[in-house]
Amino acid sequence: MSDQAVDDKADATAEEQTGGGRAGRRGRGGAESRRAARRGSGQQQLRHILRKVPRFEVMNDEALGIIEHNADTLLEEIGLEFRGDPEALQLWREAGCDVQGERVHFPRGLCRKLIQDSAPARFTQHARNPERSVEIGGDATVFAPVYGPPFVSDLEGGRRYGTMEDFRNFVKLAYMAPAIHHSGGTVCEPTDVPVNKRHLDMVYSHMRYSDKPFMGSVTAPERAEDSVAMAKLLFGADFVENNTVMISLINANSPMVWDDTMVGALKVYARHNQAVICTPFILAGAMAPCTVAGTMTQTLAEALGGMALAQLVRPGAPVVLGSFASSMSMQSGAPTFGTPEPALVLYGMGQLARRLGVPFRSGGGLCASKLPDAQAAYESANTLNATLMGGVNFTLHAAGWLEGGLVSSYEKFMMDIDQLGMLQVIAGGVDISENGQAMDAIREVGPGKHYLGCAHTQANFETAFYRSSVADNNSFEQWQSEGGLDTTARAHRLWKQWLESYQEPGLDPGVDEALQDFIRQRKDSMPDAFA
Amino acid sequence: MSDQAVDDKADATAEEQTGGGRAGRRGRGGAESRRAARRGSGQQQLRHILRKVPRFEVMNDEALGIIEHNADTLLEEIGLEFRGDPEALQLWREAGCDVQGERVHFPRGLCRKLIQDSAPARFTQHARNPERSVEIGGDATVFAPVYGPPFVSDLEGGRRYGTMEDFRNFVKLAYMAPAIHHSGGTVCEPTDVPVNKRHLDMVYSHMRYSDKPFMGSVTAPERAEDSVAMAKLLFGADFVENNTVMISLINANSPMVWDDTMVGALKVYARHNQAVICTPFILAGAMAPCTVAGTMTQTLAEALGGMALAQLVRPGAPVVLGSFASSMSMQSGAPTFGTPEPALVLYGMGQLARRLGVPFRSGGGLCASKLPDAQAAYESANTLNATLMGGVNFTLHAAGWLEGGLVSSYEKFMMDIDQLGMLQVIAGGVDISENGQAMDAIREVGPGKHYLGCAHTQANFETAFYRSSVADNNSFEQWQSEGGLDTTARAHRLWKQWLESYQEPGLDPGVDEALQDFIRQRKDSMPDAFA
Repeated sequence: MSDQAVDDKADATAEEQTGGGRAGRRGRGGAESRRAARRGSGQQQLRHILRKVPRFEVMNDEALGIIEHNADTLLEEIGLEFRGDPEALQLWREAGCDVQGERVHFPRGLCRKLIQDSAPARFTQHARNPERSVEIGGDATVFAPVYGPPFVSDLEGGRRYGTMEDFRNFVKLAYMAPAIHHSGGTVCEPTDVPVNKRHLDMVYSHMRYSDKPFMGSVTAPERAEDSVAMAKLLFGADFVENNTVMISLINANSPMVWDDTMVGALKVYARHNQAVICTPFILAGAMAPCTVAGTMTQTLAEALGGMALAQLVRPGAPVVLGSFASSMSMQSGAPTFGTPEPALVLYGMGQLARRLGVPFRSGGGLCASKLPDAQAAYESANTLNATLMGGVNFTLHAAGWLEGGLVSSYEKFMMDIDQLGMLQVIAGGVDISENGQAMDAIREVGPGKHYLGCAHTQANFETAFYRSSVADNNSFEQWQSEGGLDTTARAHRLWKQWLESYQEPGLDPGVDEALQDFIRQRKDSMPDAFA
Repeated sequence: MSDQAVDDKADATAEEQTGGGRAGRRGRGGAESRRAARRGSGQQQLRHILRKVPRFEVMNDEALGIIEHNADTLLEEIGLEFRGDPEALQLWREAGCDVQGERVHFPRGLCRKLIQDSAPARFTQHARNPERSVEIGGDATVFAPVYGPPFVSDLEGGRRYGTMEDFRNFVKLAYMAPAIHHSGGTVCEPTDVPVNKRHLDMVYSHMRYSDKPFMGSVTAPERAEDSVAMAKLLFGADFVENNTVMISLINANSPMVWDDTMVGALKVYARHNQAVICTPFILAGAMAPCTVAGTMTQTLAEALGGMALAQLVRPGAPVVLGSFASSMSMQSGAPTFGTPEPALVLYGMGQLARRLGVPFRSGGGLCASKLPDAQAAYESANTLNATLMGGVNFTLHAAGWLEGGLVSSYEKFMMDIDQLGMLQVIAGGVDISENGQAMDAIREVGPGKHYLGCAHTQANFETAFYRSSVADNNSFEQWQSEGGLDTTARAHRLWKQWLESYQEPGLDPGVDEALQDFIRQRKDSMPDAFA
């Protein structure tokens, strides 16, 4: 365990402050603060989830052992390729691997041992606002927004390329959303900024328009270095070298390849003690076998290789086992989401990550639908339920994902964050206190009466049930008289209201100036590139 | 255990034939049968689910013990009212209860003992087609359509009162839907038939247009008698008295009241050895305390009273513990669905039913939305996931429910049955066979290649992944070129196609004549009533 290992005090604080969405709401009661929460003013932000309910585990020990054995067989017999990175190959050679060209064959158990010897089981990712710092691993679940879409869409503007303004908007909405615990990374691609410079504006936006933790750039090693340099301006250089303030997404090039861009970024972050999520991003049937168990085996083997490399770069560097699996449509070859096979992969990979002893990343509000309609909602709800049930620790794409990840949807974002709030309540479990048991209420009311006016209901009513920000529960007649809007139209109204009431968290002017100077210098040092 | 106790042979057959939707599909492969399945021709019907995955349990033994203790306290101290039924009060008196007026106070543990002494833990509900018979209880999960809506809706016809034609349509769709295991009961209210006669046409429709098991009428004791009489014409009188061929929905009038209509129907069915689902139908905050634990306590107490009464009427009568809980919108007082508190009630009540040793009914595709839109889908998916995870044995409202149960929606029905197929695959768990492990594929492909053409993919591709009947997974451009339809529009097209290709399962002409004669005589014996 390194210095990232979880701080018990921080953990206790988080538990106090979370305890399910309901407890969170109750603790800061009053009509004004509830109205504030509906406006999304950030006053009622929830800490990351600390679950009080068990996990859903679909595989027994024997089956898990088979997957682990097969992953080791893959690593030993077939091996992984580390392309274009002689340093990585040298590290593997020194660790005792058989390296032939760019192909690395691993002695059985080597990767597992490297990870278990030094990687933390849980760690704190610090935010500039300490109340927004998150625990990653253990019983914690963190929700972060969608990552990577080149397009954005909303009901009025339709589907279009994302811009820096859209990027800022999603950062602001994520800042305001009570059950989004993390500002995420590439909430959409700001395609109006040169591709070699946009990482600077993206990282800056997370730092300025939110006080939640965020992700670093991975599209080139020097952009990872820029992210670290900016983090040092925000947090202080010493703090960054000794604490984790960024987490970054390192995808394998499945099957069984790690490329130089991703490995380059991984090395930068690990060297600076920043967290990396090693994720085989898999379309099963194309990039992995078309079975659940086969997909798990390959995912585990690839992730083991990435996480172990991080340990070779800097023992104790925080790593997360990532699993992103979709299944393939037989009609079109396109990825499908919210379907049963990826859910089974998620459940099994969660078990495998816990056996390994590292945090687990998967899930989110994934869907293939082109619209934020019923298909999108069924698919997303299926994946979000699996995310909570399967014990995911870090949840990318928890809100806003549309069309297989090609689109960041404003309306979908508002729908998803409502669902996240519900999951946080379920994670809090059943209140079995005397007030929860409510025997006084049952005695007071008795047969044939109603509970609306009884003392227990009066005392608990306002905080008793989750209040959806998007759902319409009125009668048909009332709903119709109010315009008969569908969910998308209501969500559209809501995100516009939120952005109108957004207020910056405030950034120290000296820090802001230093960040802007850094960005200006870096931008001036290179020509614009758009591809 | 009575003669309803599960027949091991039937069970084995079911397991063979189910094994998750995927195995089911694989077993009867070929392109023709898959096309047939998409047409919904009934050729690829799935047996009820026999789960190979665990259940999600949110409460520990101590917490469950507290709820059980509190339920007994309610039954002893406060008691339940059995209104307008002197026979029920007499049965309770003879069983040792303290009966004051219509209020019955139960010695602690009495109801539990009556149930555990004689009620079966699982039973078979026979269908006229033995391949459609279902197991209720244990590891089995049965999906049945929505029950009770006075309205129907579809994209063209809008929201309107249900008719007998709509009723027949939903029976036909349920018959054709592979993952609907049960024809259900009042799939919509046929409001164009006199209220005192419509039960005859409803029961007849289930018998004629489907060969799946079905539910009996409960709106008056004599209508329950009619249902039993018709079942005897279909199955033979002896068979009915010794086997369960109907299951019926007996709702408590919460809080803590059983009324004469429901108890009258319960007595008829129990006397004839037919199954009853004793369900406290609860809007928490109005009809039960506004807490999860309080709602569980009252649900358990009320259900215990109903199920124990059935045992007094006929020891060994099959009973099901029902839980239907919604939480209340603070804005309107309306019920909300798909929210976290009812999910927690479902999980806990499932545990309590298993401790008691009776089958459990809850869940479904519940929603409050007025449209089959994103709200409807999120809410329904949340409840459907909880249904499977929580180990529900009999699932009413699994498809077609809209607007808090006021509407049977054609499009929603098609969306929901697609989800049910997915749940059935998840329940099958992970295939860890050699073919499932797919090590040959991993060896054949290796780093940087793809799996599309490898031998393992060729052999497994067609059955590898669940194929949604409603989702569109195509590219944006292709989806747009095909009309850019949303999910509702696609579901609309689908149910119309299905009804066009519907073919009757065929009913013995002698039986059909006897049923029609019976109906004619019964209808002639009473004047029309519409209220």
